[in-house]
Amino acid sequence: MVASDETAQSGLDTKLGDTCSRTAFGWAKKSFGNRAGRMGFPIFKAEGGFSNLMDFGGLRLAMTSDGVGTKVEVAERLGVYDTLGYDLVAMTCDDLAAAGVEPVNLSNILDVDRLDERVVDALMRGLHAAAEVAGIAVVGGEIAELGERIGGWGSGMHFNWCATAIGVLPADQEPLDGSAVAPGQAVVALRSRGLRSNGYSLARRLLAQAHGPDWHGVPSGDGRSWGEALLTPSLIYCPLITELRRRGVPLTGVAHITGGGIADNFARVLALRGLGAALDDVFPPQPFVLALQALGGVPEAQAYQLWNMGNGMLFTLPAEAAPEACAIAAAQGYQARIAGAVTAEPTIVLDTRGCQPGRLLHR
Amino acid sequence: MVASDETAQSGLDTKLGDTCSRTAFGWAKKSFGNRAGRMGFPIFKAEGGFSNLMDFGGLRLAMTSDGVGTKVEVAERLGVYDTLGYDLVAMTCDDLAAAGVEPVNLSNILDVDRLDERVVDALMRGLHAAAEVAGIAVVGGEIAELGERIGGWGSGMHFNWCATAIGVLPADQEPLDGSAVAPGQAVVALRSRGLRSNGYSLARRLLAQAHGPDWHGVPSGDGRSWGEALLTPSLIYCPLITELRRRGVPLTGVAHITGGGIADNFARVLALRGLGAALDDVFPPQPFVLALQALGGVPEAQAYQLWNMGNGMLFTLPAEAAPEACAIAAAQGYQARIAGAVTAEPTIVLDTRGCQPGRLLHR
Repeated sequence: MVASDETAQSGLDTKLGDTCSRTAFGWAKKSFGNRAGRMGFPIFKAEGGFSNLMDFGGLRLAMTSDGVGTKVEVAERLGVYDTLGYDLVAMTCDDLAAAGVEPVNLSNILDVDRLDERVVDALMRGLHAAAEVAGIAVVGGEIAELGERIGGWGSGMHFNWCATAIGVLPADQEPLDGSAVAPGQAVVALRSRGLRSNGYSLARRLLAQAHGPDWHGVPSGDGRSWGEALLTPSLIYCPLITELRRRGVPLTGVAHITGGGIADNFARVLALRGLGAALDDVFPPQPFVLALQALGGVPEAQAYQLWNMGNGMLFTLPAEAAPEACAIAAAQGYQARIAGAVTAEPTIVLDTRGCQPGRLLHR
Repeated sequence: MVASDETAQSGLDTKLGDTCSRTAFGWAKKSFGNRAGRMGFPIFKAEGGFSNLMDFGGLRLAMTSDGVGTKVEVAERLGVYDTLGYDLVAMTCDDLAAAGVEPVNLSNILDVDRLDERVVDALMRGLHAAAEVAGIAVVGGEIAELGERIGGWGSGMHFNWCATAIGVLPADQEPLDGSAVAPGQAVVALRSRGLRSNGYSLARRLLAQAHGPDWHGVPSGDGRSWGEALLTPSLIYCPLITELRRRGVPLTGVAHITGGGIADNFARVLALRGLGAALDDVFPPQPFVLALQALGGVPEAQAYQLWNMGNGMLFTLPAEAAPEACAIAAAQGYQARIAGAVTAEPTIVLDTRGCQPGRLLHR
């Protein structure tokens, strides 16, 4: 629930983030009963947990909120605003996809210090393009002028951008709550093309330390400036997950790799059944991410906790179905590969592909 | 769509806000086709306009986003955080109620500079209390640590807080799109108890000019400090609107009085049929709002554009049904009264009740 990369470097602050998330969720849960017997009542799992679905007279909907975080600063540095929409749609809709839910509608909130119509136009043009990729309709929006409550880089319009997406669990499908994950199932990884919208505070700090305050114009080594590399728009995975499920590919779990990295996010898929995984063939990070890791001497464990390291989504399914899933992904333009397998032992064993490849254990 | 009170004082900037809203909505509209023939397709009115409803296989849902704006600064000044939840729920759910939609679920996003668990707990406790009043379940939330991108007053945790609410249009009811408003119908006003969550930038500026930087501790004249008066939590009207409709009271239009005041917000109810209204008996503003207006010498027209001036919601219905509606409201603890009538002439004539009572015309 708490998205922070600043704090993830200190055990104490990560704990504070977790505490605040638990506090918020504790209060939220007390409100579920307000809809008892009526539209919008949260659906509980057999095990008693909250499934993140609500019942609307048989129709099952989900609702999730997120923002693009401090990636906005990179856009401000470059004066390029028409790609953040991909990040906003990816952060929200791919969280729905991770529950097996097809994203349908999105409403966004743009908090600004003051308005610049050119910037608003570029942001919304990008959101429109990303909505087309995700197959969703943008049905709501709010622009709030908050003056000095919003800060940022340089002298242009500063802003923070978040959204809420809602989606539908198709009538003939089960939610992906981890109950069908089993040892021996394959783990398929989907490649990412950059940092998506997580881990920017560390990335910016490392680049400022190495290259000074105007780091964004310095060549990253892959033909782009550091600013351009960091602004790489998020791939949107939800149409692929929807298509795989529509075609009857028997997905059993999906993890959207956000803050916390592969291990934390994939652990949620495995938790219900107390399982683990051996991930011995994940995608390597993009060259610019490797360069960034090397630049800061970031230990493998930290890099894999703060960044997706080339793997934006993982999903599980019976091993015999994995090749077809990879083929469908490839046909849709995604890079997919079998990255490992689910294990009975409740530990995620990750063979890393960063600057100092090694083995990380996550219990 | 643009919520700003800073800019409303300058014609040029209000125009910029409107332009940005139109730009954003223009791009959003182009995405509606992404759901053609599928769940979540926006429902269009007979006249071609967007009704703010989406079709989910016959079930009609609505979705809206808003935030508490710069009222947060008042909470920061007082160190009182458990009432803003009422404002957050009112701003979102009462917008749904204005479309005749019953609010059902809410997801919130809290952007912070750094975390303070005590503050998060108080905010979420308040949100829980407000959700109970509105009869909604809080089913999602995100806390984002954004460091220096968030500013505020004093040395505590600074934050901006927004939410998205979804709701259902009951199967046996028509949306309140203005098509059933007719001349001669009554206009009922619901009393507010403060500024709700609009007009705070002007209020804060006037108080700082009159009382200096620590204005929040100065007595307001009603037994409370100015800070306490300004923090007055919003009344939540949606349960009353839902109840009136459930009982068959034939409401034809509902206006939630937010930025733009009575005239702008009520005009939207009247626009479709090209009607007007004579509002000769609205509620007077609360004494502290009158004092604030006097303090700043704020002209009647401006006060009624930036503040709700004692009237947080207006609704229209056949005149013969108005007394029953007022009685139901009173039984539920709301103050309601017949404030005027719908007219064939397309002008809103408002007899004001501020410091310099007069007559405002709005075409």
